[in-house]
Amino acid sequence: MDAKGKKIVAAYKKLGPRIETRARTRLKGKKDFSLWYTPGVGAASTYLAEHPEAARMMSVKKNSIAVVSDGSAVLGLGNIGPYGALPVMEGKSLIFKEMAGIDAWPLVLDTQDSEEIIRIVKAIAPNFGGINLEDISAPRCFRIEERLREELDIPVMHDDQHGTAVVVLAGLINAAKVVRKDIKKLRVVIVGAGAAGAAIARLLKEYGVNDIVVMDRAGIIVRTRADLSDEKRALAAFTNPRDLSGDLETAMSGADAVVGVSGPDKLSKVDIRRMADKAIVFALANPVPEIMPEEARQGGAAVIATGRSDFPNQLNNALVYPGIFRGALDKGISKITDDTKLRAAKALAALIDRPTAEKIIPDLLDKRVVKAIARAVR
Amino acid sequence: MDAKGKKIVAAYKKLGPRIETRARTRLKGKKDFSLWYTPGVGAASTYLAEHPEAARMMSVKKNSIAVVSDGSAVLGLGNIGPYGALPVMEGKSLIFKEMAGIDAWPLVLDTQDSEEIIRIVKAIAPNFGGINLEDISAPRCFRIEERLREELDIPVMHDDQHGTAVVVLAGLINAAKVVRKDIKKLRVVIVGAGAAGAAIARLLKEYGVNDIVVMDRAGIIVRTRADLSDEKRALAAFTNPRDLSGDLETAMSGADAVVGVSGPDKLSKVDIRRMADKAIVFALANPVPEIMPEEARQGGAAVIATGRSDFPNQLNNALVYPGIFRGALDKGISKITDDTKLRAAKALAALIDRPTAEKIIPDLLDKRVVKAIARAVR
Repeated sequence: MDAKGKKIVAAYKKLGPRIETRARTRLKGKKDFSLWYTPGVGAASTYLAEHPEAARMMSVKKNSIAVVSDGSAVLGLGNIGPYGALPVMEGKSLIFKEMAGIDAWPLVLDTQDSEEIIRIVKAIAPNFGGINLEDISAPRCFRIEERLREELDIPVMHDDQHGTAVVVLAGLINAAKVVRKDIKKLRVVIVGAGAAGAAIARLLKEYGVNDIVVMDRAGIIVRTRADLSDEKRALAAFTNPRDLSGDLETAMSGADAVVGVSGPDKLSKVDIRRMADKAIVFALANPVPEIMPEEARQGGAAVIATGRSDFPNQLNNALVYPGIFRGALDKGISKITDDTKLRAAKALAALIDRPTAEKIIPDLLDKRVVKAIARAVR
Repeated sequence: MDAKGKKIVAAYKKLGPRIETRARTRLKGKKDFSLWYTPGVGAASTYLAEHPEAARMMSVKKNSIAVVSDGSAVLGLGNIGPYGALPVMEGKSLIFKEMAGIDAWPLVLDTQDSEEIIRIVKAIAPNFGGINLEDISAPRCFRIEERLREELDIPVMHDDQHGTAVVVLAGLINAAKVVRKDIKKLRVVIVGAGAAGAAIARLLKEYGVNDIVVMDRAGIIVRTRADLSDEKRALAAFTNPRDLSGDLETAMSGADAVVGVSGPDKLSKVDIRRMADKAIVFALANPVPEIMPEEARQGGAAVIATGRSDFPNQLNNALVYPGIFRGALDKGISKITDDTKLRAAKALAALIDRPTAEKIIPDLLDKRVVKAIARAVR
């Protein structure tokens, strides 16, 4: 670990937990104990046993989200397990509170068995008003999310998929305005066919973008490839209309936009130079992007975005998930649909009146963001 | 539900959650996001993946407890499921924070399969510095607690067993002083052979009380009974030295103390009259005790205690668990032992200088309690 990393770790050690609990009522006298603990709690328990749906009114379930990960695909760091994932889930819990007033608690799981993860999340669901799945590797994440969406009556969202897809669509809507191209006619390359890549392709398609080419480690995903998993075959079915096959060079040639959701340093200046005029480059791997902004600029990119706080145009899920869950909790919504996501992306993009190369997306600190997305969800 | 119960439910609905989360650091500018979220969190994640033990310093694990129940034995209300249990776990989480500054989160489980409960608690353990099991029915609770104690490196305590045992021993130490009897020579009847009854019998025996008679629904537990489970056979092996057999009448005849940990209205005035002079009556079922204090007094009891906040001498676990876990978290203690519990009980009893019939145990609001028990644990 370099000196900067060590300094960060020291700051985390000094602070300790980034979130804590707080009482919403005081225990000052015996009367308080009698009401909020025993014997009073007996009446609340009897009532909730008979009316479980009232948990959304009279318990932590009203305003809480579990931030669940198995640590199998943490940031761009890979499968680093539950302890490696814990700082991310805790950071998200902090953001849920600070941005949207949501009581989120990190729940990293010491198992990577998909069926067990499904069982665990179902078992803990009574305590929470929603489940934010996070950093679970593809293709396991698709099945886990799908099952939980079907079997639970609270919203379940794998943020790496849908949060990312929403913020990318919002960014692309505005980036297209900056370069004065019709978003629906853009040639878009997505580098990375994991959780985020697949969800971005789907949402862009849903929005009306037609020429999408997705790359995995073996190259361009195309119908004719024999090595495709079920998930990738599904991707091939609605992407790559020009039936390209081959490597990154082929995909990037003449592309209007590239969205990196893979890992550090997957793109170079040379790759960017192959793109069409006024290229859009979203290099979203965290913490180290596919290409650093300076290099992308040298390659001729016109609009550049990353997922990081220390560069302009931060396309970070943190713009999306607080508002999505705020809206869902407020209205007791039990499913986040494609339509929800499209509305959220449009609402997010619309917050920027006149997009520029340096400003295609609101700042993380922009107080309007959560409200606008929550309103779009409702 | 009576009018009083309805009023309580209305108060819970009005308040909503009794606990919430709170940020321990602010997100004011991009710098804060860069440090506490991305890219900074990447360094913390990398570090924790390699040094998981540091989670106790630099994450919520440092100060947090999961309050876990399957809702199978909630208060005196029985098997009312996860939603029925939720208000109790949330109330305990509130008390953990208010009394001991501990960040506890309720985790009721929508399963009553013991093996699954063990797997779930093990899977979520990375997020927490300790596990407070609660309201899990006997004999399942014994096995679940034992396995988790063995397999986890954080303290695990089924509070219905050990919290209750500690507070009962503390109360009995002082009650014996009030009636000027030698505690070790008391004849003690325990009504109820569930989680609490078994743990109380064990801790009293450990302390040196020899004449303990435990009752279950079928009568006095005695070696000669053919219908005993393994757990009850273990109880029979070290209790009932006079080999009594029969019903409550036999057990109560000449008893110095009775500890009710069963359910509402299991004891009557007539039962109390059968006891020795200066009888000690602990009627601890919640919310409705085995006998109401007024009736016990009419039966001739000299010292009376309940688990409730609205009578004197509240022998409630809430006097114990905040301090036990405070001490364990502060010192990174991984097991709560018999010795820990004996020290905690003595420390709790010692807070009352001169016990009287109306004051054998400190008040729940007494600020010295958590400190004294935490010190005894360390």
